[in-house]
Parts: sequence; C-alpha cells; structure tokens
Amino acid sequence: MNNFTFKIPTDIRFGKGQVECLPEELAKYGKKVLLTYGGGSIKRTGLYDTIIRLLEGFDVYELGGIEPNPKLTSVEIGAKMCKGKNIDVILAVGGGSTIDASKHISCAACYDGPAWDLMMDRSLIKEALPIAVVLTICATGSEMNSGAVITNEDTNEKLEINSPLLYPSLSICDPTYLYTLPPKQTAAGTVDILSHCMEQYFQHNDEAYITDAISEAVMKTVVKYGPIAMEEPDNYEARSNLMWASTVGLNHMLTVGKGGAWSVHPIEHVVSAFYDITHGVGLSIITPAWMKLALSEETKGRFARFAREVFGVCEDDDMIAAQMGIQKLEEFNTGIGMPLHLSEVDIDDTCFEKMASEAIRTSGLSERAYVKMSEQDVMKIFVLCK
Amino acid sequence: MNNFTFKIPTDIRFGKGQVECLPEELAKYGKKVLLTYGGGSIKRTGLYDTIIRLLEGFDVYELGGIEPNPKLTSVEIGAKMCKGKNIDVILAVGGGSTIDASKHISCAACYDGPAWDLMMDRSLIKEALPIAVVLTICATGSEMNSGAVITNEDTNEKLEINSPLLYPSLSICDPTYLYTLPPKQTAAGTVDILSHCMEQYFQHNDEAYITDAISEAVMKTVVKYGPIAMEEPDNYEARSNLMWASTVGLNHMLTVGKGGAWSVHPIEHVVSAFYDITHGVGLSIITPAWMKLALSEETKGRFARFAREVFGVCEDDDMIAAQMGIQKLEEFNTGIGMPLHLSEVDIDDTCFEKMASEAIRTSGLSERAYVKMSEQDVMKIFVLCK
Repeated sequence: MNNFTFKIPTDIRFGKGQVECLPEELAKYGKKVLLTYGGGSIKRTGLYDTIIRLLEGFDVYELGGIEPNPKLTSVEIGAKMCKGKNIDVILAVGGGSTIDASKHISCAACYDGPAWDLMMDRSLIKEALPIAVVLTICATGSEMNSGAVITNEDTNEKLEINSPLLYPSLSICDPTYLYTLPPKQTAAGTVDILSHCMEQYFQHNDEAYITDAISEAVMKTVVKYGPIAMEEPDNYEARSNLMWASTVGLNHMLTVGKGGAWSVHPIEHVVSAFYDITHGVGLSIITPAWMKLALSEETKGRFARFAREVFGVCEDDDMIAAQMGIQKLEEFNTGIGMPLHLSEVDIDDTCFEKMASEAIRTSGLSERAYVKMSEQDVMKIFVLCK
Repeated sequence: MNNFTFKIPTDIRFGKGQVECLPEELAKYGKKVLLTYGGGSIKRTGLYDTIIRLLEGFDVYELGGIEPNPKLTSVEIGAKMCKGKNIDVILAVGGGSTIDASKHISCAACYDGPAWDLMMDRSLIKEALPIAVVLTICATGSEMNSGAVITNEDTNEKLEINSPLLYPSLSICDPTYLYTLPPKQTAAGTVDILSHCMEQYFQHNDEAYITDAISEAVMKTVVKYGPIAMEEPDNYEARSNLMWASTVGLNHMLTVGKGGAWSVHPIEHVVSAFYDITHGVGLSIITPAWMKLALSEETKGRFARFAREVFGVCEDDDMIAAQMGIQKLEEFNTGIGMPLHLSEVDIDDTCFEKMASEAIRTSGLSERAYVKMSEQDVMKIFVLCK
C-alpha cells in the first residue's frame, strides 16, 4: 500500500431539509454572499426561492448561467465580482459545473492576475474565499474534494485545478433535490460516478485491498441504484445512495494507498472540450472502448475481478469474465439510455488525430496510467467507438 | 437513509516513515509537549528514542504507564500536568488506551473541576488541547474519531466521553510499528476492528445500502488479513490493510445513514470494568453469544447477508446461512487464538447479575439496540459463553 495523507475539512450535511442550516453556517463567514448557479433549473424547482428566503439579511450578489463544462470567462466574471463587492463567501447552488467554477473563482478572487495563471501554476494559489455548496446534481464529487475542471474556450483546453484551499467548507446534500433532474442528467451523473471509481480502481497496485473492496462497494451501489433512479425519480433510497456514492467516489477514499494517472477522463475531457458534449455521455462512449484496448493477459485479473464483484459475473476464466464485464458495462450504459458511439452525438473522425494528440499532451496517459497509451492507442479507442 | 453530518478534521499521515513530519507539525501548536504512552513497549522497540530525537528543541514532559482500559486516575494526573506546565499539545504514542486517556486529559486540562464531570455532562467540554497521535496498535479507531473510553476505578464504570473537540489533529499511522506487537494484541485488535464494523452493521436500517456494502468491504479486509498478520507479523500488506481498516471501521464512514445503539460493546465494557480483561478478548467471547441470542426470523436476513458477504458462505436458506456465519466467526476467533468462553479468562458466574444490570443501565441495549435486550437477555448471553 502506498503512503498517503488523508484530510478532508468539508462539513457534509446530508439528508432531507438540511438546507435550513444555511443562515447559521454562512453567517460564520460574513454577510456578503456570491450566489452562483447554472442554467436556471433552480428557479423552476423552487430551490432558488428557498435559498433567497434563507439568505434574508445577507447581501446577496448573483452569478447565474454558469455553463456545463464551465468556462474560464465565467470564472473571470465571478472573480471580478468578488473583488469588486468584497465577497465573504461563495454559495454554489448546483452540480459539478457550478461548484467547479466557484472553486476557481474562490482563488482567482484572491489573486492579482488572470485566473488561468492559477491553472498553469498551482503554487500561485495562496488564498481562497470559503465556499458553501447546495448540491443539486450528483456526479462529480466536487462537493467534497479539492479539484475543479475548467475549460479555456480560447485554447480548447479543459484542465483540472487543484489545491487544498479549494475544498468546500460546507456541502448540503439533500437527495430530494435530485427528484426533478431530467433523466439524461441522472444517467450522465450515474456514468460519471462509476467512471470515477473505475479510474481509481484500474491501477497496478494490488496491495491496497481495502481500498479496492470499498471501491467495489461503491460501484455495486451505483449499478444497483442507477436504474432505479431512472425508473422512479423520487425514490429516496436510490437517490440518497447515489448521492453519497458520488461523494465517496471522489473524496479520496477510493484512491488511498493506490495512485497512478487516470485514463478515460483525460480522453473524454478533450472530446468535450472540442465538442461540448455532456461529460457523462462522453464517458459512457469511451469507457468500454478503453477497456477493450486495455484488456490483456497482464490486466485480465483485475478486469475479471471488476466483472465478478461489480456485475456479479460467474465465470472462472479470467479473460472470459473480463470480456463479460465489458459487455455488462455496455448493457448498463445503454440500459439507462446512454450512448456507446461517437456517431450518436454527431462526432465524426475529423478531429480524432488532434484530440488524440491533445489527450496525450495534457495527461499522464503515456507515462503513469494503468495501461500506458500512445497517440495511436487513443486513436484506436476513437475508432473503436466511432 | 437517515440524515447525517460528516466532518472529520483529523490529518492522517499513513505509511512508512511518516513520523518524520512530527517536528514540523507539532511546532504549529507550540513548544510544550506532553508525551503520553503506555507500559513502555515503545522503549523496547526504539520508537521512544526516535520520538525523543524528533522532539529536540521542544519542552517534553512525560506521562508513561497509561494502563490498558485507561483509568480516571491517569487522566487526572495528566490534566494536572497540563495545567501546571502550560502544555501546548499532547503527543499520544500508543494504541487506543493511550489515545483515549489523552483525549480525556485534553479537555480536562481546560476545565476547572474533576475530570469525571466531563464524562457525566458532555456540555461542559468547551475547549481541549490539540492532540497528535503516533499509532502503535490498530484496533480502536481512536486515531480518527472523537470518542474515548475511560474507566472510573472507584465506581467500576467504563464509559465513553465524546465531543467534536476530541478529534486528534494529526495521526501518524505507520504499519511497520505493528510488526513488534505481541500476537495476543494483534488478535485482540483484529477482533475489536471486526466488532466495530458489526455494531454499526447490525442495525435495523436497510436503506443505507452503500454504508453496509462499505462495511462488508472493511470486514472482508479484516477476515482476509487478520490471520496473515498472525502468521507473518512483518507482512506490510496485511498490517497496512488492517491499520486502515481499524481507522475506517470507526471514523463514522460505517454508520452514516444508519444509527442505533451498540449491543456487544456495552456488555463487554462492563465485563472488562469488573475483571480488567483485554477488550478484544471480551468481544471475542461475547459476540458469538450475542449473535445466537439476536438471531431470529426477523433478523435472519441481515445475519445471512453478513455470513455470505463477509465469510463467503454459500447457502440459500437465510436461517442456515446465518447460523453458518456465527460458526465461521467462532472459527475465525479461535483461529487467531482468541477465546470463546468466560471460563478461559477465569470469569465465573459470580457477577453475572450485577454485570447484566450494569450493562442495561449504562447503554441503549433495552431501548435502541438492533435487538432490544433486558437484563435477563444479557444474563442468557453470559450463560451461553460461560
């Protein structure tokens, strides 16, 4: 088991009605709040009104319209607002995109210079505003980790910023907010959670048995409850298990003692930077193709274990079990309405080469990934899921 | 899934050589250190010398000799030393007993009155000194939680004190420190970890599937590596998996969304308060007996799930599977040299009635436990494991 440190300062309030703690908790940071949110679904669901009622007595400034695959432009606008209004705390109401943009805003607000500098050189992050989260989509785990993925629309780069200063101070996770999610978002979130677990699980280190076993527990949870949430959007048991799975899936628990670079996310990030598709949709397409390319005599043991533990595959031969696991994952993805081919989201081979080159350039794929890959390998993955 | 909050401020440094961070980390709290430890094994292993070397430049005061089942007397001595010497930080080097005593000391040092007051009324805990831990026995999970169990030798009470102020600030968990543990302590610790998982797992709430699945992952880890650690004391993979299992086993991860009172620990606490036996030894004896009494048509489903998931029992009938699970646990305990009968630790029926009465009085057994029990039921458990 590799050495590790584990320290998560985020205060999680999980369950029905937890939002009521907002006034008391926010008051600890000050009076001036920057309220960030996305496309306005929180206005349709009534959550916006609830928040505004709870924030009576605070000075609330708003930054709505944060896009999926949040853009640097939004970050810059937010940082400028924080500086201009002397904001005390950022309240992010939304999913991973809103939270990620808020994280980048929180440190850019304390930095004299372009926000993208902090992406290029993390050592420049010396300070950040506190962030409170009200989670409305479960997928990215951003509510309890220190990373944020931002797209620079000028350079087509989609990169991760990360610093211990970027942990949300408070995250309110109320599964009932998921009841009104469009099915496609529920499905995309489900695929994203599973992918986070898989990225951490498919690594060479076999000694961190406990971490792998916990990962299997979280993946089993996603496989069990994803389809139920699709069938019954207001099933509290399904929503709450998925919501906590998304948090545990990327709060460091599933990587302790392991490590190594991720494989599928860097490839998907490039695709969604080029084509602005939903992250979970891209993962649904690329993951099985990556598995097919990564499966070998050397890796079949872990792939077989995945198949058996997560999908209950009963098959003694490792290679056959591994292949069955890939098929099960494809069935799982299509079962919740997710695609398996780039053509289904109108992506043709025009940019395959450019995207493959960019995926290698911006990641540890060729050097530290579970199965090291070249540009040609990434091209093969694109062709496999054409 | 029940509502919950989750916030753990402890900074975990896990792995070989992590102790080297001590000077830098302790310096954050000040210069005056109270070094607490137990019977002196750290002097035999050389860890004491390492610590003293690392603490060069600090003012170090020592409180050694903290007993297993730590006593209020030790707490009072420690609190007096902290007050008299204006201690800045407590450095607990040891296992659960040393850490627990240090936790009680840390708040008693900031309280004008008898330390036991804080046990009787937690609202009196307003402040506590920071605690750093160097873990040398894995069992209690005290390195990453806010509880401490202390014995009042005047009243024969063994009770838990708990406050968010009692989380260690830093815990150094180096699995190589476990290499020199006497086999009996390795075995007792293993039983203790498994029991913590079981106390949280055997509850009525079935909706927190993810928490139960993670619990099964931790229990499988203990069952896999406990015997290996007994056979090969310096097996790093076994020691590291067990060490992290002990931390995760009682850092709140396995209880989120569930809840309910514990069953076996309160009974064992009374036994070890009366007879001063090793906690894990008491748990090894009482747990299977408790299972036999708690197993019923109503509970057989969960007992069967435990048997299948943790011990790999293959049996379709729930009642038979459940009984096989109990037998597997007995075999596991005896397999690592732990007893199943009170007579093996020289306890006869003299105090059965008094202990049963005390177990009910000091716990939620009769009102909030998985299977509610009366004094007569606890007596039956004692008779079952006579």
